[in-house]
Amino acid sequence: MRCQNSMRVLENIIYDELQTGDYATFTKTLTEEQLVLFAAASSDTNPQSLALEVVKKDLLKADIGYGMWSESIISAAITNVIPGPGTIYLEQQLKFERKVDIGNTLTVKLTIKEKLERHRVIIYCEVTNQDSELVVSGEAKVIAPIEKISIEQSELPRIKII
Amino acid sequence: MRCQNSMRVLENIIYDELQTGDYATFTKTLTEEQLVLFAAASSDTNPQSLALEVVKKDLLKADIGYGMWSESIISAAITNVIPGPGTIYLEQQLKFERKVDIGNTLTVKLTIKEKLERHRVIIYCEVTNQDSELVVSGEAKVIAPIEKISIEQSELPRIKII
Repeated sequence: MRCQNSMRVLENIIYDELQTGDYATFTKTLTEEQLVLFAAASSDTNPQSLALEVVKKDLLKADIGYGMWSESIISAAITNVIPGPGTIYLEQQLKFERKVDIGNTLTVKLTIKEKLERHRVIIYCEVTNQDSELVVSGEAKVIAPIEKISIEQSELPRIKII
Repeated sequence: MRCQNSMRVLENIIYDELQTGDYATFTKTLTEEQLVLFAAASSDTNPQSLALEVVKKDLLKADIGYGMWSESIISAAITNVIPGPGTIYLEQQLKFERKVDIGNTLTVKLTIKEKLERHRVIIYCEVTNQDSELVVSGEAKVIAPIEKISIEQSELPRIKII
């Protein structure tokens, strides 16, 4: 992943380039805004009628940060960073070790554990918080891309919470 | 889950009430809006600079609907429906069987598979599409709530994609 002016380019790492032990990290802070967007994307609640206070109370009580959000940043890291665009997700196993709260900064570390036949790859997934405590651990099985793909992110629609 | 006027009440199912074989379903359609919200919540992209067209191209190419979004509706169903508020997520195993596209309607079916000691419960998770094809299967291990919790969803902040 490299930056050019305000344009971000996502470039994948194809199967032949991946080596056992290669790793990438991806860091993100859980904000209130993210929590609301997350609830809107995945719950059965109409995004037009989401109550921030209720979402916070409800979903933190049910440990949303714990499960859903940690899962999603692992998937985002696989999708965007390693192997990146073109990856096909086959399996994901996760163990949730510790709670996540608003304001926590999580770092996902993805390590290539094993390369298998037919472009399958096992990725070890580890999420730690700002105090280096283990939050989530697990493994993903994916089909790594075989063709190089670069994607530019440049246009600007907007999301607002009002 | 019951409805009163425009107010939704989420009520959990506590450990003692859960029985092996009990199940609940939860249905949701993947819209473009959801996809953008999802990307904003979980990627490293600033929500202020998310490009709808790019997100669609990028993330569908990387099978986002496949992985991330299917995962998140399973978590949402566990969090909101069965056992519902107060549940603590311990483990999740998923196998992605089939692609998801914008416009697809997914139904999550959660079935209580086994009640264990210390309020642990194994839940069988199955996601099917509008053609009754299996999209995702797996199991979750959770700590079921021991206290009854009801949550009202009533206030109205808004999310807009502009």
